[in-house]
Amino acid sequence: MSTHPVTVVAFGGNAMWPSGERGSPAEQIAHAHAACHPLASRIAAGERFVLVHGNGPQVGRELDRGFAARATIDPVPLDVYVAATQGTMGYYLEIALREALRAAGAEARIATLATLVRVDEADPAFQHPDKPIGPFYSETEAARIAHERGARFVEDAGRGHRQVVPSPRPIEVLDLGAISALLDTRHVVIAGGGGGIPVVREASGALRGVEAVVDKDHTAALIATMLRARSLVDLTGVDFVYRDFGKPTQAALRRLTLDEALALHAAGQFPPGSMGPKILAACAFLQAGGGEVLISSMRGLEKALSHELGTRMVPS
Amino acid sequence: MSTHPVTVVAFGGNAMWPSGERGSPAEQIAHAHAACHPLASRIAAGERFVLVHGNGPQVGRELDRGFAARATIDPVPLDVYVAATQGTMGYYLEIALREALRAAGAEARIATLATLVRVDEADPAFQHPDKPIGPFYSETEAARIAHERGARFVEDAGRGHRQVVPSPRPIEVLDLGAISALLDTRHVVIAGGGGGIPVVREASGALRGVEAVVDKDHTAALIATMLRARSLVDLTGVDFVYRDFGKPTQAALRRLTLDEALALHAAGQFPPGSMGPKILAACAFLQAGGGEVLISSMRGLEKALSHELGTRMVPS
Repeated sequence: MSTHPVTVVAFGGNAMWPSGERGSPAEQIAHAHAACHPLASRIAAGERFVLVHGNGPQVGRELDRGFAARATIDPVPLDVYVAATQGTMGYYLEIALREALRAAGAEARIATLATLVRVDEADPAFQHPDKPIGPFYSETEAARIAHERGARFVEDAGRGHRQVVPSPRPIEVLDLGAISALLDTRHVVIAGGGGGIPVVREASGALRGVEAVVDKDHTAALIATMLRARSLVDLTGVDFVYRDFGKPTQAALRRLTLDEALALHAAGQFPPGSMGPKILAACAFLQAGGGEVLISSMRGLEKALSHELGTRMVPS
Repeated sequence: MSTHPVTVVAFGGNAMWPSGERGSPAEQIAHAHAACHPLASRIAAGERFVLVHGNGPQVGRELDRGFAARATIDPVPLDVYVAATQGTMGYYLEIALREALRAAGAEARIATLATLVRVDEADPAFQHPDKPIGPFYSETEAARIAHERGARFVEDAGRGHRQVVPSPRPIEVLDLGAISALLDTRHVVIAGGGGGIPVVREASGALRGVEAVVDKDHTAALIATMLRARSLVDLTGVDFVYRDFGKPTQAALRRLTLDEALALHAAGQFPPGSMGPKILAACAFLQAGGGEVLISSMRGLEKALSHELGTRMVPS
């Protein structure tokens, strides 16, 4: 839709709140600044970006805050906490991006949008919550919280127990026209935060929020597809996608075609809780005509954008 | 800036959460729907609107929630709670507006923006907190909370005691270009929520959040001025601006020139805690070239827009 090449960059909520920190506003703004810094010179040179952030640790904290205050203040449903994290994290990111652009001498044309994404109420994810949010707990703590709140917990990659919530696929990004209009007027657009606020369309046609957290990789891929973006950049905890990750035979994959990626996924190389959803979202973008997907670490962003680091996925 | 006539509509957070209710998402969405309903046919006919909402009750609840949960979850500064209310209230308003437009058969081009507003750190408001937020408390409760949190309370118009926070004047709306670009592409724009997230520019040029709640009437007037809007509509609890409000000689003012409004203000007709800031914001818009300001109640919005109800303020 946009008439200029666009890059959609997606990164997790843990990029702004790494484990071990308290997630204070100053800490999150500092991490957001480090994330935005490599984009500034490219933005100054006229490249167009959409930034999509996750909110796993942050939305978990809002749930915890709401639960801790429940004796005096009514908690709100999960979709409302997602909306709150769009507000707070969008604020942190906008402050950081404005500073990065100012330091680079670039004009600060930035817009942070609240994004609603439509999901399907019949999505099987509602019966199988598998999206981890919030902090890690010991097995005992997790069992206690699960009992108190009726929450569901799973053991996460040997790091402890985390709450899981439904993560349905995004079907439609409701503010896509706004994103496009803002890109056309040379704005950097922060959108789809936390994967977007999940809503369903009722038989009447009205929209209603649902308790879920949409995967930001899928939302970023959908935004990139609909905008006909040139590139989708997925930032994660590792510099590359690996074959045989964590085994003695581990090997970084520098280039992957769509067919190769699908074959490796079918062979169980990318586990459902970590690289799997990223690869599937990337494949969906390439299948819909996307030019390339870059997967690398947040600290590798600059090199990834210039193809010096990271896994580059291409149609063929 | 926009090439089409624009109307900026401002309403208080209490329009979405009247006192006596619990402020649940469903309640706030229902009130937002009632607010948006009269705009739908006008939007369908091509009129352009910017909606600016206050957040007095809502940001007060976020402060309360943060305080109630403080034993286990770090509270955040007031600017971050303002950002959270932009997220949650923008979501409620967008759901409601989409439904109103759908019911009217109008295309739903809606964008909800996170808005940062720049304020002056030397603004005397920081020394004189006077913006009431949150619920009403008895004198005893207010004294206890003031002591516990170091918060400041004042007696509010005979209705009880409310916390007050600094409310500096907005100097610059940082996403004005985005608002304008969205209006030019026929979007209804929800912006400046809660008066905007207050930030100051440090000597280095960097932006930093400050603990304050900006008055949404001033932010709406600034947005209207900068956009060269045709009309500014301020919705409040009463159908008209009155002379001698609450006295036996009370008289509704149907038309007020700028000079008349300033003279009545100077004569003490509009108290600082209620109609005063609205009148001053309205005068600022008219002095800067604005065409008209309509002041009426939320339930009078439809009639106010067609000049059948409410106070119409004009340059001369």
